[in-house]
Amino acid sequence: MLKWLGWIVLVGGLWTAPARAEDGYDLWLRYRPLPTAQASAVAERATSVVRDEMDPTIELAAAELVRGITGLTGRAVAAGNVATGAIVIGTARSARIAALRLPLAGLGDEGFVVRSATVDGKPVTVVAANRPIGVLYGAFRLLRMAQTGGSIDNLSVVDRPKLGLRMLNHWDNLDRYVERGYAGRSLWDWQKLPGFSDPRYTDYARANASVGINGTVLNNVNASADILKPEFLGKIEKLAGMFRPWGIKVYVSARFSAPIEIGGLKTADPLDPQVAAWWKAKADEIYARIPDFGGFLVKANSEGQPGPGDYKRSHADGANMLARALKPHGGIVMWRAFVYANEKPEDRVRQAYSEFAPLDGKFADNVIVQVKNGPIDFQPREPFHPLFGAMPRTPLMMEVQITKEYMGFATHLVYLGTLWQEVLRSDTYRPRKGTTVADVLDTPVRPGALTGMAGVSNIGTDRNWSGSQFDQANWYAFGRLAWNPDGDAREIARDWAAMTWGQAAAEPIVAMMMRSHEAVVDYMMPLGLNHLFATGHHYGPGPWVDDLAREDWNPVYFHKADRNGIGFDRTPSGSNAAAQYAPVLARKFSDPKAVPENLLLWFHHVSWDRRMASGRTLWEELVAKYDRGVAEVTAMQAHWAAMEGKVDAGRFAEVNQFLAIQRQEAQWWRDACIAYFAEVSGRPIPAGVTPPPHPASYYKAIRTPWAPGNGK
Amino acid sequence: MLKWLGWIVLVGGLWTAPARAEDGYDLWLRYRPLPTAQASAVAERATSVVRDEMDPTIELAAAELVRGITGLTGRAVAAGNVATGAIVIGTARSARIAALRLPLAGLGDEGFVVRSATVDGKPVTVVAANRPIGVLYGAFRLLRMAQTGGSIDNLSVVDRPKLGLRMLNHWDNLDRYVERGYAGRSLWDWQKLPGFSDPRYTDYARANASVGINGTVLNNVNASADILKPEFLGKIEKLAGMFRPWGIKVYVSARFSAPIEIGGLKTADPLDPQVAAWWKAKADEIYARIPDFGGFLVKANSEGQPGPGDYKRSHADGANMLARALKPHGGIVMWRAFVYANEKPEDRVRQAYSEFAPLDGKFADNVIVQVKNGPIDFQPREPFHPLFGAMPRTPLMMEVQITKEYMGFATHLVYLGTLWQEVLRSDTYRPRKGTTVADVLDTPVRPGALTGMAGVSNIGTDRNWSGSQFDQANWYAFGRLAWNPDGDAREIARDWAAMTWGQAAAEPIVAMMMRSHEAVVDYMMPLGLNHLFATGHHYGPGPWVDDLAREDWNPVYFHKADRNGIGFDRTPSGSNAAAQYAPVLARKFSDPKAVPENLLLWFHHVSWDRRMASGRTLWEELVAKYDRGVAEVTAMQAHWAAMEGKVDAGRFAEVNQFLAIQRQEAQWWRDACIAYFAEVSGRPIPAGVTPPPHPASYYKAIRTPWAPGNGK
Repeated sequence: MLKWLGWIVLVGGLWTAPARAEDGYDLWLRYRPLPTAQASAVAERATSVVRDEMDPTIELAAAELVRGITGLTGRAVAAGNVATGAIVIGTARSARIAALRLPLAGLGDEGFVVRSATVDGKPVTVVAANRPIGVLYGAFRLLRMAQTGGSIDNLSVVDRPKLGLRMLNHWDNLDRYVERGYAGRSLWDWQKLPGFSDPRYTDYARANASVGINGTVLNNVNASADILKPEFLGKIEKLAGMFRPWGIKVYVSARFSAPIEIGGLKTADPLDPQVAAWWKAKADEIYARIPDFGGFLVKANSEGQPGPGDYKRSHADGANMLARALKPHGGIVMWRAFVYANEKPEDRVRQAYSEFAPLDGKFADNVIVQVKNGPIDFQPREPFHPLFGAMPRTPLMMEVQITKEYMGFATHLVYLGTLWQEVLRSDTYRPRKGTTVADVLDTPVRPGALTGMAGVSNIGTDRNWSGSQFDQANWYAFGRLAWNPDGDAREIARDWAAMTWGQAAAEPIVAMMMRSHEAVVDYMMPLGLNHLFATGHHYGPGPWVDDLAREDWNPVYFHKADRNGIGFDRTPSGSNAAAQYAPVLARKFSDPKAVPENLLLWFHHVSWDRRMASGRTLWEELVAKYDRGVAEVTAMQAHWAAMEGKVDAGRFAEVNQFLAIQRQEAQWWRDACIAYFAEVSGRPIPAGVTPPPHPASYYKAIRTPWAPGNGK
Repeated sequence: MLKWLGWIVLVGGLWTAPARAEDGYDLWLRYRPLPTAQASAVAERATSVVRDEMDPTIELAAAELVRGITGLTGRAVAAGNVATGAIVIGTARSARIAALRLPLAGLGDEGFVVRSATVDGKPVTVVAANRPIGVLYGAFRLLRMAQTGGSIDNLSVVDRPKLGLRMLNHWDNLDRYVERGYAGRSLWDWQKLPGFSDPRYTDYARANASVGINGTVLNNVNASADILKPEFLGKIEKLAGMFRPWGIKVYVSARFSAPIEIGGLKTADPLDPQVAAWWKAKADEIYARIPDFGGFLVKANSEGQPGPGDYKRSHADGANMLARALKPHGGIVMWRAFVYANEKPEDRVRQAYSEFAPLDGKFADNVIVQVKNGPIDFQPREPFHPLFGAMPRTPLMMEVQITKEYMGFATHLVYLGTLWQEVLRSDTYRPRKGTTVADVLDTPVRPGALTGMAGVSNIGTDRNWSGSQFDQANWYAFGRLAWNPDGDAREIARDWAAMTWGQAAAEPIVAMMMRSHEAVVDYMMPLGLNHLFATGHHYGPGPWVDDLAREDWNPVYFHKADRNGIGFDRTPSGSNAAAQYAPVLARKFSDPKAVPENLLLWFHHVSWDRRMASGRTLWEELVAKYDRGVAEVTAMQAHWAAMEGKVDAGRFAEVNQFLAIQRQEAQWWRDACIAYFAEVSGRPIPAGVTPPPHPASYYKAIRTPWAPGNGK
């Protein structure tokens, strides 16, 4: 009978459900009705939308305001004339805007003013900028204020992005496979391009513009040269045309050996004049189709990719050759510093710094070096990358990974805003105390020099874009932090949650989000451990793995656990990677008493019996961390269960199920790692701790060959 | 200025567009409001939905009726009591239904009665069946009548499916790659199963149930044994549970060598007792989880797949061994007859018949042999497969390909209902004149013997399910023809169009659909030509290809064009494949004067100068056919352009763009084939015909390595 009741409840739901449940497609731009009082207040300040200029981007801004306000207030609003409560938008090319003498001078091409003002004698709200794209950004800002319950009375908002390049990197292959993608296939339907202009391309561009993202690298850094062929350029041209009014430039990952593979040359040596000529001709060909093409992203001499090193040339030689080809057209080169060479036995953590720091000042002015947030590879926690602050004459942009390759794929709820904030607020002590990574990023190395931030996209064809509802927050947070690296992760989470789930649900959701990153660190790799993943797909634990071709691909290389202790000695007695930081930091990191405990095993090999701040031994602390991680996920589940009825049923159920998966997998991580480290250390499970239900051999035998994101 | 006007019109559209445009997700179950008079008429006959039984499937039927009627009439309708105009649904377990003494006796488990009747003194409509699934099918039938403008007064519909197995075959790999898939990735999100019950699984099952499909093979016939591992069985169990109330059983493709690959045995010899025991234990394991598991589909000893032939055993040996394992649980084996062996130099067209016809009567009674509609492989046109009618003691089911591997992928508008009807209505002359393929399929070889039809699915994660709006029609038509192989392709098209595009748009859309298949035959492979495809992905023309490893993979093998003539001699002077048909047909096909011209080059090698019925030479006729194919697509474009405003803007635009792609690719086919055959034949382009703009070498040089569906 209970079973029957279940059926009735389940199926009964269908009788009243709307034809289309919320499924996450609308992202943070849902524009659902506001609470009544707020709706009225907004409606009074949004009686019509007025624009004088004919411009596609201003037109989009106007349409967005109409769509947003209509949705939020439930009242029809349209384009109209200046009246009380109008929203007047435009640039100084509009006489009405010009007459207001707004403080636009310092705002550049992308900044904006949103201000309550009087136009034609009527109280209005003005959204003004130097360029149409600023107007669009301002419109989205005004809508954000309305969506999150902020007042739109007496406004005086002046803002501009702190970084110039706010860039998504798609690791999308031309067959639509997304490397490290957990959200379906690549959005780019190359087969149907340029003939089919999928409306989703516009929805993608709109979502990006709403958070200020202004560039997209369409293809994987492990690139095929084919994307530079004429047939693909025609397809890219179509996408560029659809993205253009949203202020988004397209870039491509360029394979360094393309002159050989599709150019018929015998070499890709950057100092060979034929090679340089080939790239110049290719750049000319691209710009003939796409006058505002952004430029190239290059992964060279890393993980098997070709590069200038194949010809005994430096990274600067390679980057500058490409930069010269792009320069006449205003294009740029983003050159990745994620390199580790096969031939070098050096601690992998040291290699990017070793190769790049000496090249400081050697790059052309339209080159920017793209440095990952940490020195390994997007681990749950790493110290900030020592190159930040170490190349004062070279523009650096930071690369973060929005897709959660190393943090549980799509089903684990992990808000990355706090991780990125931790990095951005790290003090580099270069050139002096107080110079954070954010400062390094947003201070041009010379006037007009490039600045930027890149996020490896988590976007795919999944209906919810990102593979899960909560992974949308990471896309959103990336955009916000690229706009302002000093932004506050909690505030960003709050805005996202209010827009995505409704204001009433926002606070409890923010509470979950804010503890979620520390939870994944704890149940996967606490205390500075890293890279304990199963082989290839990085799904599930594999701390025992020791059979990979390269020493520095193996988890045992990274944790160095044995009977006596655990951790990688990166102090002067070990690899001395700590010395790549500013001296004060190098000393701090090298001192086991001074190093933060959450990075202890990153920098030190220590005894299992070492006494921790908590009073526990290291071994006990490690186990406690794993337990805490699992407990945190359990707590998130309870937290979410209480949201039932406060958010829509469809998205509620999805998150609920994903949290159950996360709980199960957190337990797997915890059990496997404790079982393994107990075996390696010879330590018993501490008193009061639930032993793993199986010996380490059980976890070692688990294979998940079909996990997504690696291979096909 | 014109450019500006374009912008205004374009962007202006956004101001009034509903938040969500139609995108095809709703398929033929859109339930949009009917014209007023029809809506009133339906509303009078659908005042409430009444059911007495507690059953999940009847609950779904009731919910569907409520959803459909509410949508179609705009009036809220709900579950309720018997009143004038009620819809009363159920089986004879309901006293009210039983009292009506409906003619349910001959309707089996899946048939239904939909009848106007009097219950409790009130005029009502009754949907009744022997089993709940019949009630669900009846509910969908009633809704179809309402959707298509049919009267729902004075009803007396009695129907049951003519085939028992109405089956989708998904060629989905476990990594979610779909072989020959052009509609995104596999729906089955194995990584998140069983934890995540994607609502789309239910939507999939509902759509299938609405057309009577009652089985689904989840994975590719080129199977991985991993799907038989416990972790996958847990995932399949979840899907089976979601599909069960919709009357859909799950099946899997079983890899014949699984006992070696995952069972640890040294052999997969079907006569080895250990092998049989392994499969028996595996079947027991599956049924312990899924009591209504359907069974196995097997591709054996074909295109490199393992099979009983590896051990010198017959197909019957292999199939029967598996059948014995499944038999105690009621499971079945579908054994594919699509075989062609590496070692045999025999005409590939002959091989399935040669191998299988001698096995007639040798298969266990829970085995059904699955035969493709034609003897090659889903070409635009083939004669029916000679096995139909040639195995009178063996259950045969027909396999058709819904996904358009050989007909332009997703962007070509090709309605396959007419192709399948052509095959189903073909006279096999076995045992006697008038015995059509449909008769062979729907006449059990003994009482209670298996019957069925399988369609290779065109379904994926694309929002519109099938890769294009019009490819939905092929999914729909497959279901309808599997329910009734004597169904009429035009009537099916009309129902689909009325439900999918609205009644007002239906007739012109049907007109396009009905000529679309002949168009693709003409612009790709007229007059019985076949397999002229570029290598691997089967995208675009490659009639010149002669470098593939197997002779019978090469287009030149199939067309045999030279200076003198073209075509494959399958008469007694050649491979004599014609002799595999009934004698009267063999004679007809072998006679160049009697063979239908549309199969001429399938059966005959003839001179370029042969005079055709039209009075043209064969060469001129071939060219004229290619031109006609292109002209037909041009006509479809014009036809569709006239639909603007008569269908929703979103789907209109998609179809419009796809037709432009189709036009361009039809031209490519036409130009490439004419250029090539002109070169081979040495014939000049006929007078009045536009010469291809390039020489054959130009078309030969075209490479499309990233075309989807083959490889990654």
